[in-house]
Amino acid sequence: MTKRSVIKFGGTSVGDFSKIKNIASYLATRVEKVEELVVVVSAMGKTTDELLKNVDMLSKEPDQHDLALLLTTGEQQTISYISIALKALGINTKAMTGFQAGIKTKGNYMKSKILEVDNNVFEKAFESNNVVVVAGFQGMNEAGELTTLGRGGSDTTAVAIASSLGTPCEIYTDVAGVYGTDPRLYSAKRLDVVSFEEMMEMSALGAGVLETRSVEIAKNYNVPIYLGQTLSNERGTWIMPQEDILEQKAVTGVALDKDMHYVTFSYPKNDATLLKQLFTQLEKEEINIDMISQIVNTEGLQISFTMKDTDTLELKHIFDTLYQEFAELNYVVKSEYVKVSVIGSGMRDMSGVASKVFMTLLENDIEFYQVTTSEISISYVVDKANGVLAVGKLCAVFGL
Amino acid sequence: MTKRSVIKFGGTSVGDFSKIKNIASYLATRVEKVEELVVVVSAMGKTTDELLKNVDMLSKEPDQHDLALLLTTGEQQTISYISIALKALGINTKAMTGFQAGIKTKGNYMKSKILEVDNNVFEKAFESNNVVVVAGFQGMNEAGELTTLGRGGSDTTAVAIASSLGTPCEIYTDVAGVYGTDPRLYSAKRLDVVSFEEMMEMSALGAGVLETRSVEIAKNYNVPIYLGQTLSNERGTWIMPQEDILEQKAVTGVALDKDMHYVTFSYPKNDATLLKQLFTQLEKEEINIDMISQIVNTEGLQISFTMKDTDTLELKHIFDTLYQEFAELNYVVKSEYVKVSVIGSGMRDMSGVASKVFMTLLENDIEFYQVTTSEISISYVVDKANGVLAVGKLCAVFGL
Repeated sequence: MTKRSVIKFGGTSVGDFSKIKNIASYLATRVEKVEELVVVVSAMGKTTDELLKNVDMLSKEPDQHDLALLLTTGEQQTISYISIALKALGINTKAMTGFQAGIKTKGNYMKSKILEVDNNVFEKAFESNNVVVVAGFQGMNEAGELTTLGRGGSDTTAVAIASSLGTPCEIYTDVAGVYGTDPRLYSAKRLDVVSFEEMMEMSALGAGVLETRSVEIAKNYNVPIYLGQTLSNERGTWIMPQEDILEQKAVTGVALDKDMHYVTFSYPKNDATLLKQLFTQLEKEEINIDMISQIVNTEGLQISFTMKDTDTLELKHIFDTLYQEFAELNYVVKSEYVKVSVIGSGMRDMSGVASKVFMTLLENDIEFYQVTTSEISISYVVDKANGVLAVGKLCAVFGL
Repeated sequence: MTKRSVIKFGGTSVGDFSKIKNIASYLATRVEKVEELVVVVSAMGKTTDELLKNVDMLSKEPDQHDLALLLTTGEQQTISYISIALKALGINTKAMTGFQAGIKTKGNYMKSKILEVDNNVFEKAFESNNVVVVAGFQGMNEAGELTTLGRGGSDTTAVAIASSLGTPCEIYTDVAGVYGTDPRLYSAKRLDVVSFEEMMEMSALGAGVLETRSVEIAKNYNVPIYLGQTLSNERGTWIMPQEDILEQKAVTGVALDKDMHYVTFSYPKNDATLLKQLFTQLEKEEINIDMISQIVNTEGLQISFTMKDTDTLELKHIFDTLYQEFAELNYVVKSEYVKVSVIGSGMRDMSGVASKVFMTLLENDIEFYQVTTSEISISYVVDKANGVLAVGKLCAVFGL
């Protein structure tokens, strides 16, 4: 029986035309081994950034629908090129944009979520093709408008298709798998295997190898992910269910989330209407905040939270609107912060991780401003200048 | 009542971001005059050429479907940019790709024809928008695949939408209307008005201001076209029904069709099967040939015709296939020819045009190899080297 696989290549892997040719040759060897492939690709190299830079010349606040319409052209070009390169090698291919592949989305144009994938599209395409090349990162909403899944969304596309077809998902990038921390920060070891939960924490906390949402879908539908280096023979990392992993470590990774904003927000009285409006607006604009802490005392209400600096514009809108109704509102957004997190599924069973982290920061004179814990992680907000130092010291302490 | 107009801008007119901004400002002034606009745009400047150059690196014979998929990204980017620039001026816009605008096509991917335009899409969009920005040159076929109308097809998109909405169609390019001949060849006068028939002949014969098919649709649906220079106050040319034009001239234009191939094809006997196969194949590949002349004598069959050099590859295929069955087939393709044509609706009523053309060529020692006439035109194949000379002499003789 013909084996089926879903393979995803990131933007750097398809960054120029000789890379595209090499990927086509590699895919041809897979087809020779009687495999049917769905190949999901991102926009070439810096295409998305360049398109956004062009927009800067036209508008400071471009419409999300127009932006999605613009950005989807990036992957559409890549699928055409990959398909052309594969056909030049005699492979039967069918190239499809997200909407042609039946990828239906909902929500905010630029941060849409996949609602469903139409299986039949692939079954039909495989009747006369060995490779179906699909544009990652994009889909179509119910109004027939083109949408994007947000940056990194090509991983989500690949995992969603793999789950729909019942195959594993191979994701190739320029790093050879998952490391205990970002190799650019500290030369930690590569992990052979990591659980969905750990990977999700690592992604959410800024380890950045895979988008959180793609791991979430993989976890929910039990799709094993193989993360490897493009066109390399080096062994990568399998991301799989926790119960399938035999040897568990207390700590598997240390993540650094750069470019955090630290927002402090105060109001002279504890007003529930204000809080309700704030959180409703944050949800509406799909701004992810975390590490929330709230204090109510005689001086009123004080909330602080962290957020990525990408949503600054939307946040300003929200505060401007609230300000009209609540004139005594006071808020400060401070940048130059990072979040350092220690992650490990084994953490819940093994004691002492929290105190070890605490002592390490203390011994190295690394000040911290806020702490949060989850079942399998501990995160600290520290000054940007101390981020890399903290990661190195923690990796060393936990033997990564 | 709100006036509605369809306005088309070519690739040079949207060639950079400052041009896009200027066009947006111009459109805003039109919207202020309570106009609802459909704006049809091409890919920016040399985008299409650049995309095709990239393909050269991957394949010598790229698949037409993949090419169409690639090229449609060009206009999709332009509509996003125009829409973003218009919104920055406070105009409500809706940007649509060809398929989103309900443009259904049939036929060869890269040379598709518009089957129908969905009026309802525009009615719905105008409920909450003043400007609908549509990607020209593209549509979707019945299989749900993206198609292109062939180069210059954005004019066709604009005219088809204008016909569907019952409005005139304004087409803006970098030349201010229709001239008696290409202004780069001879400084002929600009025409205030020209008939559909004359314009069709001029386009078909290489005057190149508008694609023949767009004028054909305009003629069939009685859509007056205004052809003007982008963002200029200079008066352009109206293209309209013959009967609406009061003063008719014997000759309105001289056209030069460059880069013609002159194909001669011989076979030792008059074989109907061969001819049938040849013409069936030419039709299948949608190769336009013209100026056909055929001779049958004791030496067998001889056919010669002219064609554009863009279809050389397809022609070679056809002859290679025929050659397998008809081994005595002989064919020669000569390049370095041009076609000079004299056009005028009044020609059918006024005698002497043909002899005047003939004498002009003779007096200037311009050799010619083939002649064809239609009701409103006469065309001569001459050496490429004599093309511009012939145009200049003929313009002078007919007072253009």
